[in-house]
Amino acid sequence: MNTLLLEPHNGVLHITLNRPQSRNAMSLEMVNELRAVLAQLDSQTRAVVISGAGGHFCAGADVKDLVTAGNQLQALNRAFGTLLQEVEAVPQVVIVVLQGAVLGGGFGLACVSDIAIADHQAQFGLPETSLGLLPAQIAPFVVKRIGLTQARRLALTAARFDGVEAERLGVVHFTERDAQGLAERLDEVLGHVLRCAPVANGRTKQLLLASVDEPLERVLDRGAQWFAEAVRGEEGIEGTQAFVQKRKPRWCR
Amino acid sequence: MNTLLLEPHNGVLHITLNRPQSRNAMSLEMVNELRAVLAQLDSQTRAVVISGAGGHFCAGADVKDLVTAGNQLQALNRAFGTLLQEVEAVPQVVIVVLQGAVLGGGFGLACVSDIAIADHQAQFGLPETSLGLLPAQIAPFVVKRIGLTQARRLALTAARFDGVEAERLGVVHFTERDAQGLAERLDEVLGHVLRCAPVANGRTKQLLLASVDEPLERVLDRGAQWFAEAVRGEEGIEGTQAFVQKRKPRWCR
Amino acid sequence: MNTLLLEPHNGVLHITLNRPQSRNAMSLEMVNELRAVLAQLDSQTRAVVISGAGGHFCAGADVKDLVTAGNQLQALNRAFGTLLQEVEAVPQVVIVVLQGAVLGGGFGLACVSDIAIADHQAQFGLPETSLGLLPAQIAPFVVKRIGLTQARRLALTAARFDGVEAERLGVVHFTERDAQGLAERLDEVLGHVLRCAPVANGRTKQLLLASVDEPLERVLDRGAQWFAEAVRGEEGIEGTQAFVQKRKPRWCR
Repeated sequence: MNTLLLEPHNGVLHITLNRPQSRNAMSLEMVNELRAVLAQLDSQTRAVVISGAGGHFCAGADVKDLVTAGNQLQALNRAFGTLLQEVEAVPQVVIVVLQGAVLGGGFGLACVSDIAIADHQAQFGLPETSLGLLPAQIAPFVVKRIGLTQARRLALTAARFDGVEAERLGVVHFTERDAQGLAERLDEVLGHVLRCAPVANGRTKQLLLASVDEPLERVLDRGAQWFAEAVRGEEGIEGTQAFVQKRKPRWCR
Repeated sequence: MNTLLLEPHNGVLHITLNRPQSRNAMSLEMVNELRAVLAQLDSQTRAVVISGAGGHFCAGADVKDLVTAGNQLQALNRAFGTLLQEVEAVPQVVIVVLQGAVLGGGFGLACVSDIAIADHQAQFGLPETSLGLLPAQIAPFVVKRIGLTQARRLALTAARFDGVEAERLGVVHFTERDAQGLAERLDEVLGHVLRCAPVANGRTKQLLLASVDEPLERVLDRGAQWFAEAVRGEEGIEGTQAFVQKRKPRWCR
Repeated sequence: MNTLLLEPHNGVLHITLNRPQSRNAMSLEMVNELRAVLAQLDSQTRAVVISGAGGHFCAGADVKDLVTAGNQLQALNRAFGTLLQEVEAVPQVVIVVLQGAVLGGGFGLACVSDIAIADHQAQFGLPETSLGLLPAQIAPFVVKRIGLTQARRLALTAARFDGVEAERLGVVHFTERDAQGLAERLDEVLGHVLRCAPVANGRTKQLLLASVDEPLERVLDRGAQWFAEAVRGEEGIEGTQAFVQKRKPRWCR
């Protein structure tokens, strides 16, 4: 990998966006490498943590790619949207740790996480229309994240805002004061994720995402089938036995 | 009724979940009794208040039912989802008063209320995946209540949180310090509900729910028809006359 | 125009609802005049600011119209919904400045703005059902603005609330202490809007609105096409050149 650092540890894959010279701008190569990593996740990996090298998360698209893309521009832009769809759909819990620039495509990537932790001074924003461009692949995920009412103000004013405001708007779940605070919060969140059964969490995530897009009846029907399978399955048996025996289930780390 | 206390009073049906020995765990019998009560509501009943006996609202599904359900497990789980759909759809205003445990299915029931009032120390949570199970019938209603962004964190970490956090997340509308505060807030809310015309409120509730699921044009078309019927109907005539005559309309209690 | 004051200035059309004797109640004539103004907006107009004369925004429907409408009542009500749909759909950025009464239809109009600025003492509410009527054309836009959970409480209790609460609920983006505060905030917001390229902003607004109603894939596909067009178009070329040359792009006012 040229643009990413990968560190698997204790069932968690830590991915560091690693182009610090350009504040981890999302190059075509980085998009492709992220997609390749996600496509190879196995069931041993229960959570994915994405952060950035050098004090920034991601400053958005790489302008050089725009210049050199020629007639591939539309496909290149769409590929970033596909990356966001794929990050959203992985059964693993996706956690982002946000510092410094969280702009444009970096903001979009934050919006498809399950849990977002931000430095209070992180800088969020959608600068695209101030450059004559569109947050084209990002806008739908911002609406999905924080609703139309806040998304339209942010996008139509190219607003900049910090981590505290990001928490108020619902972009992120936690805001911390410094790197140590971020590390401690990440540990806590990972501890909570790892006490949950992995298959149960993956299917629950599918039901949550389906709730947005599919008719309620269909989601409830599928949910009932999966519930019955869970009760009779390995995780359900282990989980309820552990509960009765007042011990931690095997999947707890 | 074995599992419920019912007290009709002044156009309001007060339902108390009454299995305090198991923190009002939602047994199959309780599901069936709640459905039977809702099916028999008449137009004299303008609001339904649901609370729990013994200091708890509802601690979730009854584990005994899971064990004995056998191959009825899927149907039993789905029936709870049907209950939530039916609670959501009644034309009456549904108010929940939340103390103690508001877990799993109890959390789901809170999520289909029109107005939720919580003790600041009530304990909310979705513990399912930490037991190897899924919040299968509950997840869609949590997403509908507070949006995907917060629902995914809660469900995928089996998070516990109190009433203050529940208000911040939008699960509940009011938080109070003690039983007296809850009782006073309930009185105030019921007072506001009962100054609204019952048929108008029931149809408005239908339009609000339809706004989530149906195309905008169709909701607006139906709304215009119902608006014209209301203006010419008994309630509209009484309401506008009362307004001109500076008196309370007849439906006010 | 009998019911509106229009002041175009520096690419911004300022519309004042001007029936102060009835707190700018939304008469059929006002609906028709607003629709006529919107239909004639040209691409030189980049933002529309709507406010009310005499210290109020809009106190709702004009009761006189209800009385005289006869069998046109349904069509008259639906026409107000069409106005809200049209305000929502204009490519310009729509800003509302809210003082005094923001009731019923006035509340609905606030809910289709891109950016809402309110006096902290403005009075919001949906009084319809307390009059035996329905917020029929308004309810869907309130749900779209602040979600079902808050909308149902407001509509089913005929609740009144002030600007501070409106900001907390997400109805408005900013709350100010007085007329000077409102004017300064409006200047700031307009400054941010006018640094954004007009075609890019109009298309971004379309993508945001489509994100609510259309399948994600379709929005992303259209977005990619528009992104490529923007990069190669006049605004994209000017915007990226201005960025490299560290100057403001031509569209900045």
